[in-house]
Amino acid sequence: MKTARRADDIEPFRVMAILARAREMQAAGRDIIHMEVGEPDFATPTPIVEAGIAALRAGYTHYTPALGLPALRAAIAAYYGERYGVDIAAGRVCVTPGASGALLLAMAALFDPGEEILMADPGYPCNRHFARLVEARAKGIPVGPETGYQLTAELVARHWGPRTRGVLVANPGNPTGMLISATELAAIHAEVRARNGWLIVDEIYHELVYDAAPASAAGLGEDVLIINSFSKYFLMTGWRLGWMLVPPALLPSIDKLAQNLFLAAPTVAQHAALVALTAETRALLDQRKAELRLRRDALLPALSRLGFAVKTAPQGAFYCYADVSRFGMAAEQLAERLLLDAGVAITPGTDFGTHQASRHVRFAYTTDLQRILEALRRIEAVLA
Amino acid sequence: MKTARRADDIEPFRVMAILARAREMQAAGRDIIHMEVGEPDFATPTPIVEAGIAALRAGYTHYTPALGLPALRAAIAAYYGERYGVDIAAGRVCVTPGASGALLLAMAALFDPGEEILMADPGYPCNRHFARLVEARAKGIPVGPETGYQLTAELVARHWGPRTRGVLVANPGNPTGMLISATELAAIHAEVRARNGWLIVDEIYHELVYDAAPASAAGLGEDVLIINSFSKYFLMTGWRLGWMLVPPALLPSIDKLAQNLFLAAPTVAQHAALVALTAETRALLDQRKAELRLRRDALLPALSRLGFAVKTAPQGAFYCYADVSRFGMAAEQLAERLLLDAGVAITPGTDFGTHQASRHVRFAYTTDLQRILEALRRIEAVLA
Repeated sequence: MKTARRADDIEPFRVMAILARAREMQAAGRDIIHMEVGEPDFATPTPIVEAGIAALRAGYTHYTPALGLPALRAAIAAYYGERYGVDIAAGRVCVTPGASGALLLAMAALFDPGEEILMADPGYPCNRHFARLVEARAKGIPVGPETGYQLTAELVARHWGPRTRGVLVANPGNPTGMLISATELAAIHAEVRARNGWLIVDEIYHELVYDAAPASAAGLGEDVLIINSFSKYFLMTGWRLGWMLVPPALLPSIDKLAQNLFLAAPTVAQHAALVALTAETRALLDQRKAELRLRRDALLPALSRLGFAVKTAPQGAFYCYADVSRFGMAAEQLAERLLLDAGVAITPGTDFGTHQASRHVRFAYTTDLQRILEALRRIEAVLA
Repeated sequence: MKTARRADDIEPFRVMAILARAREMQAAGRDIIHMEVGEPDFATPTPIVEAGIAALRAGYTHYTPALGLPALRAAIAAYYGERYGVDIAAGRVCVTPGASGALLLAMAALFDPGEEILMADPGYPCNRHFARLVEARAKGIPVGPETGYQLTAELVARHWGPRTRGVLVANPGNPTGMLISATELAAIHAEVRARNGWLIVDEIYHELVYDAAPASAAGLGEDVLIINSFSKYFLMTGWRLGWMLVPPALLPSIDKLAQNLFLAAPTVAQHAALVALTAETRALLDQRKAELRLRRDALLPALSRLGFAVKTAPQGAFYCYADVSRFGMAAEQLAERLLLDAGVAITPGTDFGTHQASRHVRFAYTTDLQRILEALRRIEAVLA
């Protein structure tokens, strides 16, 4: 029986096949070091968990409004004031089931079939698939170390075509952890605005920037859609909670789409997130962030020593994106070899686009430092 | 700036405006009886809540696999064996963020732009909007009391056109609570199968059938997509958890779509749901179901007495769908009058389609019996 063409076009995460195989090997007794998964290894901090428990005990098990608990929307708005000095109306905050829910709403609200959204290649694979879902088209723009693997205003202007309606950037990006400078982002915004297009900025790794304190694109203006998540810095992956700052004119559309597409984000997660945003919890989260930074600082020079060419030192997230050309095999082949021979799971670049994808791999430093050092020893032995 | 056409086409729930107004009136001190909301008033039963708390304490805060916790998939499969005598492979179970997640996956996997899905009018409004999301077309078939407000094999055959690719039925249906007979559903399945189409059966209210023990459409064959939810009978609305039984050939597509569109359903909800499916918990849930039945049995004759024409006695769910022609005003006007003058919130039929929609309203018996009786007294006074 016939299925939708999009079901053929949308690709599985290649990393899932690696993960499945790694788990089989583990089940067979093999010790596997997981550096493939884009999920922090830390459990959700206790105050957040306790807030979730308190919410369940209090009987908060019904739906919330589609745009989220009013108190959480207000707390997220206040967070932009405290953290970034940007004044955001609580009414602009849409609480979503993960950043995934926000991407779904944004694509559904903005883009008609055949319309184009520019995005960096390499980039987070789901972005192009959300575009595909609504029959719009993600146009991947090849980027490399010369632009920090990010779009620039010049690239946006050059690639904007008659059917282009928007630009999506992730700051910092996945798989590279690289930032766009404030100046460049403002210039991109100006290019997009001049063309009456939409700018979507994914800031889900924005709190995980180690050597800088970048501004949020929320400060660029109310016309920018800002997507964020409680999954990464806030360590709440399995709770499935994110948010979006919505341009005021889009709010009625986003509200009705949220009502229809998911009703509301999970209630217990929304109550727990209220505590995630407090100064006390953020002090705990900053400790985890410091640990992530230590891992990066150990991993990065070691990878270079082993011949993995990380061409721009990642500034944030928990990834190193490395050129593996010098090993004389394609990324998928190398990833397989490291899994089989070293028991180290990593992600081939082919999960992130097509531009030089099979020359790159992504290491996620989402396992503890001792394990990362062990992984490096094993990789060295295999590649020697 | 231009937005997507679908953002204009997708309608808000009209009930949301009523709900917002009702809340304003409550905030101003008015006593409002809520019979508009499609959500049970009961809190999640204690054993399920305790299982959620235990999962949080155990640190189950990370992502699960995209198709769900293996133990939950197995438990859901086993439930079909115990409850319906149907043997389901656990591998066919996809755990989703609510039935909404299942509808999203089904529409995304099956239907290309311009293709048609037949569904009953009146029906659950989100169904047509999920079709719209992926640029497919929901073709609403007018149904009335003569077919129990359900599609029939004859209607399917008559309305099947060159672009039709599937049929979605809800059994029992919302807003009417009416069942399709096993014979009729088998005949619909045969019509769909003969045309190489897809049959999707929404069984989210299937455990809330009061005077019969209908068979699940899961028994019709592996080619039928069955959608269900932990929200209604299992009283877990705010947890956002549902599931879908997937035809084996579709599993790879559904898996990669789930990975890309929502990563996984909420983890704590999945652990709690394991306890929701046990015999002990179902005994508690059956007590709530008995209470819903008492409400229906009180509401139904009283509505008739007041002049609301409920043309077929609802067999399940928690709704009464009534013709209000004799009151000489449109449904939205009547709903407004009952809200303002009686302090009773109900849903106009216009939320459920276009066929005679402004002649009907929906009463949800999702508030306790005493309040329902009070609502009836107030309505009687206003309409007298």
